[in-house]
Amino acid sequence: MKLSYTSPKLITDVEGVECSGLKTEKGGLGIVKCRGKVAGVFTKNKFRAAPVIVTEENIANGFLEGIIVNSGNANAYTGKEGIKNAVKMAEMLAEKLECSPKDVAVSSTGIIGVQLDMEWIGEMVEKVYPKLGNYDQCSWEFAKSITTTDAFTKQWGLGVDDAVVAGVAKGAGMIAPNMATMLAYIFTDANVKRIDELLKKTVSKTFNSITVDGDTSTNDTVLLISTGSKEVNESKFERALRCVCSVLAEMIVADGEGATKLMRVFVRGAESDNDAYIAAKTVASSTLVKTALFGCDANWGRIIAALGYSGVNMDDRITIEVAGCEWRADEAFGLSKRLRKSTKILDKGRYVGNRENIMKIMKNDVVEFYIDLGVGNGKSCAVGCDLSYSYVELNSKYTT
Amino acid sequence: MKLSYTSPKLITDVEGVECSGLKTEKGGLGIVKCRGKVAGVFTKNKFRAAPVIVTEENIANGFLEGIIVNSGNANAYTGKEGIKNAVKMAEMLAEKLECSPKDVAVSSTGIIGVQLDMEWIGEMVEKVYPKLGNYDQCSWEFAKSITTTDAFTKQWGLGVDDAVVAGVAKGAGMIAPNMATMLAYIFTDANVKRIDELLKKTVSKTFNSITVDGDTSTNDTVLLISTGSKEVNESKFERALRCVCSVLAEMIVADGEGATKLMRVFVRGAESDNDAYIAAKTVASSTLVKTALFGCDANWGRIIAALGYSGVNMDDRITIEVAGCEWRADEAFGLSKRLRKSTKILDKGRYVGNRENIMKIMKNDVVEFYIDLGVGNGKSCAVGCDLSYSYVELNSKYTT
Repeated sequence: MKLSYTSPKLITDVEGVECSGLKTEKGGLGIVKCRGKVAGVFTKNKFRAAPVIVTEENIANGFLEGIIVNSGNANAYTGKEGIKNAVKMAEMLAEKLECSPKDVAVSSTGIIGVQLDMEWIGEMVEKVYPKLGNYDQCSWEFAKSITTTDAFTKQWGLGVDDAVVAGVAKGAGMIAPNMATMLAYIFTDANVKRIDELLKKTVSKTFNSITVDGDTSTNDTVLLISTGSKEVNESKFERALRCVCSVLAEMIVADGEGATKLMRVFVRGAESDNDAYIAAKTVASSTLVKTALFGCDANWGRIIAALGYSGVNMDDRITIEVAGCEWRADEAFGLSKRLRKSTKILDKGRYVGNRENIMKIMKNDVVEFYIDLGVGNGKSCAVGCDLSYSYVELNSKYTT
Repeated sequence: MKLSYTSPKLITDVEGVECSGLKTEKGGLGIVKCRGKVAGVFTKNKFRAAPVIVTEENIANGFLEGIIVNSGNANAYTGKEGIKNAVKMAEMLAEKLECSPKDVAVSSTGIIGVQLDMEWIGEMVEKVYPKLGNYDQCSWEFAKSITTTDAFTKQWGLGVDDAVVAGVAKGAGMIAPNMATMLAYIFTDANVKRIDELLKKTVSKTFNSITVDGDTSTNDTVLLISTGSKEVNESKFERALRCVCSVLAEMIVADGEGATKLMRVFVRGAESDNDAYIAAKTVASSTLVKTALFGCDANWGRIIAALGYSGVNMDDRITIEVAGCEWRADEAFGLSKRLRKSTKILDKGRYVGNRENIMKIMKNDVVEFYIDLGVGNGKSCAVGCDLSYSYVELNSKYTT
């Protein structure tokens, strides 16, 4: 599913950000120059890739000078040599930026278990670094260079008062979130207070709603970098940041391998927000709900069964509504509340749906389920996609 | 994946068991007459189907006279009317058997959320009951009548001293174990001691290794019925029961919708058996491992990533071997230890595999992974299947 979009702002609109990148047949390399404050959220996978280990250590002091990313090789499960190579990548950029290698973040994405070709990385740095700039084209080049199986580049940004918050992400394969290597870099020239806390909170409501807890890849990384000190309204900024992360997250889901449509699952009436979150994710992750969605099949029993094994407390009399719409960035994760046509499937446990109506709605690019569990005020949302033939095709051939 | 087999014993070889069944376009109905002791294990899904609720209550006193099963309609999420109908089914059979309806077990499998057509059930009982018998054909008829999307009937049995232990199962869709309606009925004329305890222990090592904990369907049911009092060697009987359950469980996996091959994942060197169990299930359930298996793709990074998000403690230096073979019932779940050709992929974290060798092995009907986590003596096994195009085809069209 290829989303077409025009982002209001790009990362190169953020003061203090320069970038570029190059994609070749062998893989890509991208560089960002961005002096500022930094916070990061990393994969919880036991086998964290070398660049994740190195980057977490490097950003611990909260200060960053630049980012170097390669695509094609994840530098994961590569032992001590992998760590040495990740450190070497940081050193290569640090030499150019004339800064400490400890102030550089490193990411890799691609195949697991193969050592990096450091000579090639060195050559790529020589090619990419001279092209760094803050033109629109530079942002596109960076976004493109970090992609792997992505069908389109992922960029989104907004203005907030005089400042800008904008990001670039890569990732696909969200149907099996456990393996999606998700990288996201958000930049702003606003003066961000409590940057760590803010990033964690925002990620939990956006990127984490597209990946099952713990089922993260070896390389998943989200960084937030503040390059400036423009004063902005705090809650306005928080909303903008959440919007940027939401849109990027939905772009990743839409680019799920073989995905043909998005599914948003809104759960309310749970005993807690966390219960609602678990229920929403369980429905959005069910392979049988996903295949039913692909087939526009009104098989609501699969939603009931998924809720039933989610382990969350709920009333026996569930209410389920379904709605369908076109994709619009400002509606990612239900950010806005444009009225749309919906139809009830279950009303307090009683089937009230019209099969033809439901199927018509399920033919839309975005299908939304509104589920009321009827036992409290907890609410949350999860986003997923359908499961199509192409998913199997892509993933049965990935390394071959 | 269609397994061909000839079972050494059938349920009609068990003294005191008579059965029959009929499959029509609308659905099937099967009946077993089997006076004896009974134990049951049921789904943990929050939305337990009406027949599950009724049967658990009915077998609480440990005594059973008969079983009635319909296929095509799960009688799940059907409220009070559903319960009434499940009770009514028990009454219909009880009337024929001249026993209390409280001594009848009821099962249903099929679509969720639609009320049973009780008139049709009544007509089917009239047709099936007169055909009850203990010929081989009766066992086949019963096994056939309870199937839904099953590609083949599932029966397995063995002799133990003078007694017989034999079972019938149905189930498919194991690629998404969360929705598989699995029914299994095991009969024996041996005098079984601590029948409840024994069934729970056996199920945990067999049927439960093919369904993720908690991710059970609304209707899953396993019953063990002892119709006789033949004295048998206790540990010999336990092994035979485990063998029967293992073979039936593997038959269900092999019949996973669209499955083309079986995968057995053996994990050792874990801190506990439970840790090993979780690690094995995580690998066997990973959609990316499944698609790689379908494509005979030697992408071992996906196994590493799955182990990494399993949450289980392990050494950084994993050892992984792969072996391939034909399916043989006596080897289900590694019951026997026939020597087979295997090749190492990872040796204590170091890649030692030969890509062509690995791919050749992965072309077998049964592919086995032997994984050593290197931190303890815990071991376990899980069984799964690959994920193919046909899975998507079948499940995107199920109700339409």
